[in-house]
Amino acid sequence: MVRIGIDVGGTGIQTGVVSSDGKILAEESIVTLTDIPFSDQIVRMTDSVRSVLKSAGMTEDDVELVGVGIPGIASRETGEVIKCTNMGWSHVPFRTEWEKNFPKTVLIENDANVAALAESVAGVSAGSSSSVFITIGTGIGSGIVIDGKIWSGFHGIGGELGHTIMDLDGVPCTCGNHGCLERYCSATALIRMAREAVVDQPDCRILKEVGGDPNRISARTVIDLAREADPLATALYQRWISYLGQAIANVANFLDPEIIVLGGGVSKAGAFLLDAVTEEFPKYVLFRDQLLPEIKLAVLGAKAGIIGAAMLS
Amino acid sequence: MVRIGIDVGGTGIQTGVVSSDGKILAEESIVTLTDIPFSDQIVRMTDSVRSVLKSAGMTEDDVELVGVGIPGIASRETGEVIKCTNMGWSHVPFRTEWEKNFPKTVLIENDANVAALAESVAGVSAGSSSSVFITIGTGIGSGIVIDGKIWSGFHGIGGELGHTIMDLDGVPCTCGNHGCLERYCSATALIRMAREAVVDQPDCRILKEVGGDPNRISARTVIDLAREADPLATALYQRWISYLGQAIANVANFLDPEIIVLGGGVSKAGAFLLDAVTEEFPKYVLFRDQLLPEIKLAVLGAKAGIIGAAMLS
Repeated sequence: MVRIGIDVGGTGIQTGVVSSDGKILAEESIVTLTDIPFSDQIVRMTDSVRSVLKSAGMTEDDVELVGVGIPGIASRETGEVIKCTNMGWSHVPFRTEWEKNFPKTVLIENDANVAALAESVAGVSAGSSSSVFITIGTGIGSGIVIDGKIWSGFHGIGGELGHTIMDLDGVPCTCGNHGCLERYCSATALIRMAREAVVDQPDCRILKEVGGDPNRISARTVIDLAREADPLATALYQRWISYLGQAIANVANFLDPEIIVLGGGVSKAGAFLLDAVTEEFPKYVLFRDQLLPEIKLAVLGAKAGIIGAAMLS
Repeated sequence: MVRIGIDVGGTGIQTGVVSSDGKILAEESIVTLTDIPFSDQIVRMTDSVRSVLKSAGMTEDDVELVGVGIPGIASRETGEVIKCTNMGWSHVPFRTEWEKNFPKTVLIENDANVAALAESVAGVSAGSSSSVFITIGTGIGSGIVIDGKIWSGFHGIGGELGHTIMDLDGVPCTCGNHGCLERYCSATALIRMAREAVVDQPDCRILKEVGGDPNRISARTVIDLAREADPLATALYQRWISYLGQAIANVANFLDPEIIVLGGGVSKAGAFLLDAVTEEFPKYVLFRDQLLPEIKLAVLGAKAGIIGAAMLS
């Protein structure tokens, strides 16, 4: 028996046939359409499942279950998607609609949780009993795995590390609050800090790198220049690493998982990122002279969505 | 069969005979002595166990296991107390020494975790599958219960909500860091805010209440005057409630337990506290229009230490 993993994103929907040990046997991608009725979106997804099964030389009968990762929250009990802003879904009966089109059990879960599960089953935290996955990109997402299972909270609203408050009355967040962790630790935060800093330094290398246009500064611009020891980029990077170190320490102080996995676009900075945060975060851990969670970089990348969805249980 | 629960505190050690459903059948207290050798401390404790068993009309043979709550961290595997500042213990072989004096399995756990377990077995969160217990006193302690079991972290250093950072570069903390949550949400924090505020308001009711001596201001001074709608006390209390609300929201956003229990000295403020935080914390939850953790006040008080220790498994 195989499993189907579906990764629903704002621009594309990836569907894969996945073996029970988390290997992708076949996959395909369709473009996300948000201007069609919800029932038609489900038809497109189930069609894609049949198509990818065909390319794997299989049929519905080979499918044990279907897992779906969404950028939002879903109810495990009712199979309803409670909120998924990118898809324009609010309280849609996903499971009911799905079962009209495809006669297999469907499980729905938040995409950061799904990525956390993928890494803990078939990725860098495989074999660990507990892990927290932190995606660092435009925002900060997180997923918790305890005893090999996703913990998305009793009410399904957990895992939102990015919106825990780490600076009282701090920088305004898109969520309406102030001082949310993702305002300090995301790629967006590093970009904001850099744009603020270059105003007073018209001759800096950061600006040269982007042809003098601060709007073209990316997290990578700063990280690459920090790697080359440019003083301004290094100062910005170190400040950002200090914030990220404090965020990781918050996870260690409160939940203390076996492993903390860093994923998302920023994790492509590799050892330069890993070494910096591994050195930084213990400074903020209360019992810093004890054994601490190990920090690792995610290895499954964009495939984590398909693999983790297929591993839901 | 009964269980023995021991609550090791800086001033006294409470020992109780506890039934399997968490009822105290007999108890006694001895004064904590820290100026005697560790092995003598264990002898005093095991003597106290025999004494309390006798007063319950029982013997060693009736004891299933012994649980001990300590204000520090212990290794579940080795039975070693890794750190317990109040008792002057650092890497002491608690279990080994214990078993020389008392021939029953002994389990050791952090005291905030023990209190969390007590409430979830025999207190206000009984029957819940997940809960976070927050003690609000001089500092902020916390304990996590998931699937009916204490989660103190993979390395035993978790549950330290009080030392997660909620204000970057904020108020210095006793732990050496800045901006720790307990600097804003503890009784100590409310006292500090009041002492700072009264400097400019020599005629305020807070100062009148303490005979003009700011050093005599307690959390209760402020809370009682806020209850009477004194403007300065109300402003201080609301600011402190806003901080506590954000701390609770951090727990909801990240872990989302079924129930969040508030204990410790400050929880004696009762409904006045409960109503205020229940109204405040959802403002800072990302999915605030969904079902959220229920906030409850601890009910076991000082007995939680004995009961929770006896419930360890």
